[in-house]
Amino acid sequence: MASSILSDCSSARLLPLRRALLPPRAPRLRPCPALAHPRRLLVAARPQLLPRPRRMDSPPPPPPRPPIQVRLLATVSADAPAKVIDGKLVAKQVREEIAVEVTRMKDAIGIVPGLAVILVGSRKDSQTYVRNKKKACEAVGIKSYEVNLPEDSSEEEVIKHIASFNSDPSVHGILVQLPLPRHMNDENILNAVSIEKDVDGFHPLNIGRLAMQGRDPFFVPCTPKGCMELLHRFGVEIKGKRAVVIGRSNIVGMPAALLLQKANATVSIVHSQTKNPEEITRQADIVIAAVGVANLVRGNWIKPGAAIIDVGINPVDDPESPRGYRLVGDVCYEEASKVAGAITPVPGGVGPMTIAMLLSNTLESAKRTHKFK
Amino acid sequence: MASSILSDCSSARLLPLRRALLPPRAPRLRPCPALAHPRRLLVAARPQLLPRPRRMDSPPPPPPRPPIQVRLLATVSADAPAKVIDGKLVAKQVREEIAVEVTRMKDAIGIVPGLAVILVGSRKDSQTYVRNKKKACEAVGIKSYEVNLPEDSSEEEVIKHIASFNSDPSVHGILVQLPLPRHMNDENILNAVSIEKDVDGFHPLNIGRLAMQGRDPFFVPCTPKGCMELLHRFGVEIKGKRAVVIGRSNIVGMPAALLLQKANATVSIVHSQTKNPEEITRQADIVIAAVGVANLVRGNWIKPGAAIIDVGINPVDDPESPRGYRLVGDVCYEEASKVAGAITPVPGGVGPMTIAMLLSNTLESAKRTHKFK
Repeated sequence: MASSILSDCSSARLLPLRRALLPPRAPRLRPCPALAHPRRLLVAARPQLLPRPRRMDSPPPPPPRPPIQVRLLATVSADAPAKVIDGKLVAKQVREEIAVEVTRMKDAIGIVPGLAVILVGSRKDSQTYVRNKKKACEAVGIKSYEVNLPEDSSEEEVIKHIASFNSDPSVHGILVQLPLPRHMNDENILNAVSIEKDVDGFHPLNIGRLAMQGRDPFFVPCTPKGCMELLHRFGVEIKGKRAVVIGRSNIVGMPAALLLQKANATVSIVHSQTKNPEEITRQADIVIAAVGVANLVRGNWIKPGAAIIDVGINPVDDPESPRGYRLVGDVCYEEASKVAGAITPVPGGVGPMTIAMLLSNTLESAKRTHKFK
Repeated sequence: MASSILSDCSSARLLPLRRALLPPRAPRLRPCPALAHPRRLLVAARPQLLPRPRRMDSPPPPPPRPPIQVRLLATVSADAPAKVIDGKLVAKQVREEIAVEVTRMKDAIGIVPGLAVILVGSRKDSQTYVRNKKKACEAVGIKSYEVNLPEDSSEEEVIKHIASFNSDPSVHGILVQLPLPRHMNDENILNAVSIEKDVDGFHPLNIGRLAMQGRDPFFVPCTPKGCMELLHRFGVEIKGKRAVVIGRSNIVGMPAALLLQKANATVSIVHSQTKNPEEITRQADIVIAAVGVANLVRGNWIKPGAAIIDVGINPVDDPESPRGYRLVGDVCYEEASKVAGAITPVPGGVGPMTIAMLLSNTLESAKRTHKFK
């Protein structure tokens, strides 16, 4: 299985709809170096990162690399001029700013922002996400509330808990961890969350207000908000620029396109039915890739100097990794970083921004509720 | 004043924001023939129309034209291969279909769809629109309710009438005629219309559901719905095609883009901040122009064979017209019709579709309320 994934970008793992995004000639392309030589990618990407401060929450440093990898570093460095958009660094800055604001609010009016998370079932990945959100809340001083319900709970039980949080004045944000068990209707449950506490920003009323000129949503969905924050903090000009969003999901692609549009970019959305995605993407000054296909976006899709935000986090087999797999983005980083002007790495790009934006939305909600400026 | 408008597409009448849409070289282009020779356009456009059935509601036929114009007809006919997308014809078909359905519903369950229109103030154009809507309702058997309020009414009075219609089971659609007097907040008033009766489809919840995959709006806004209906009825394939929407208003451009996107086109939105609108438009298989700038879209903006839906209805001075002006679209028809595969005329294109779609939404609402298939 690993060999088929490592031999070509057009991995057998691709979902049928997503496969349609691949241009007809993709199978004849040279394999994305990141897939052919997984270890080399990890080394090659590192020297482009901006100087990193010590991170309180980062994992232990990797073991020292052998000399051959150090030489590769130097070689690739010359080829890869793109500025790395370091999401970990920005997310840390954002969390620090939030912590300051939470303290200021508590000192001034005695209010502590509160985030409630509802988890149904016992999926390991969901449990990890919920644990990480709880830890992130604690680190900035936001109070977290958690409800764990068994897999076979009824919709009514979940909605009962949502209703309870809706009316609880110490809760300013409510998040239902997805995916929900199959017997539940996501729409019914998500619609039960009060629009004033929908910190995920997934409510259609929020999306409608995001789409409309002259209106503002109560909350901007966290991942697209993180993408925009990265562009803003790295000084990428948006107004008047061509932007392409690859993928049109309700939680990332579509709201990202609406945000870029609101910021006065000229936006095109590329999706599974698009016939020439590489040609359209090549016209873009800004690319947000959020389609969930490992290394879909190759170097020749990129306009020289473009800013690339890679939302994809795709596991690909990697026998050299202790876990047997590693994570890559939707963009073939090694190729794209030689053409782009700025690019997010995966991991360490958009990923860390999502939780930071969830905290930001919770703080914003508490401030709005208590009219605290 | 007339001469400045007739001399060039870059009319002095353009709004500042809209002016930005003009490409830098526009002033050096040959003037749009429609503006330089207004009478010729009217004659030239006519022979391209599909054979027209007799229209019950059409105005009296124009006086016979002199021989010189007949010769022009023949000349231009050879140059203009585009199929004319006859909105009057389609709107008539739609109204006939609605009338059949209204009768079938009344006969089956005794329910007559009802549309309430609220008019505040005494603007002549608004009065005309309201009168036309009322007549259109009567013609298909929809019952219309009308409230006329004085210009100096308060927001509360308008909202009180909306609330009354919201709870009236014989009313299935509520429409507040825009623009409202300046002292009123449009958002407050439009938000008071029950989402189940918002036949205009302007409520942000509707727009959000339109934007999202897997959700459907209660109502699709009338003008964009009319554009899509024209494309469908004239057999224009949308899935997988490149589409450009020019203009991003809440009532036309933005929802039109969302509808095209939902129909699996690859959509780009061109607006006042777009730097090279003609280049982007030239890539499109489908163009919806809804920006309100007379003859903005020139022949060289159009990809050969493209389908052009022109939403613009712009008055331009015309001393030869009895009214002193005539209506032209956002697309320079005479140029575009020589390049496009299909094109809507102005007037007689999208315009007649808007009221037809309002009737369609009202019928749909009554059917939904009474679960009538």
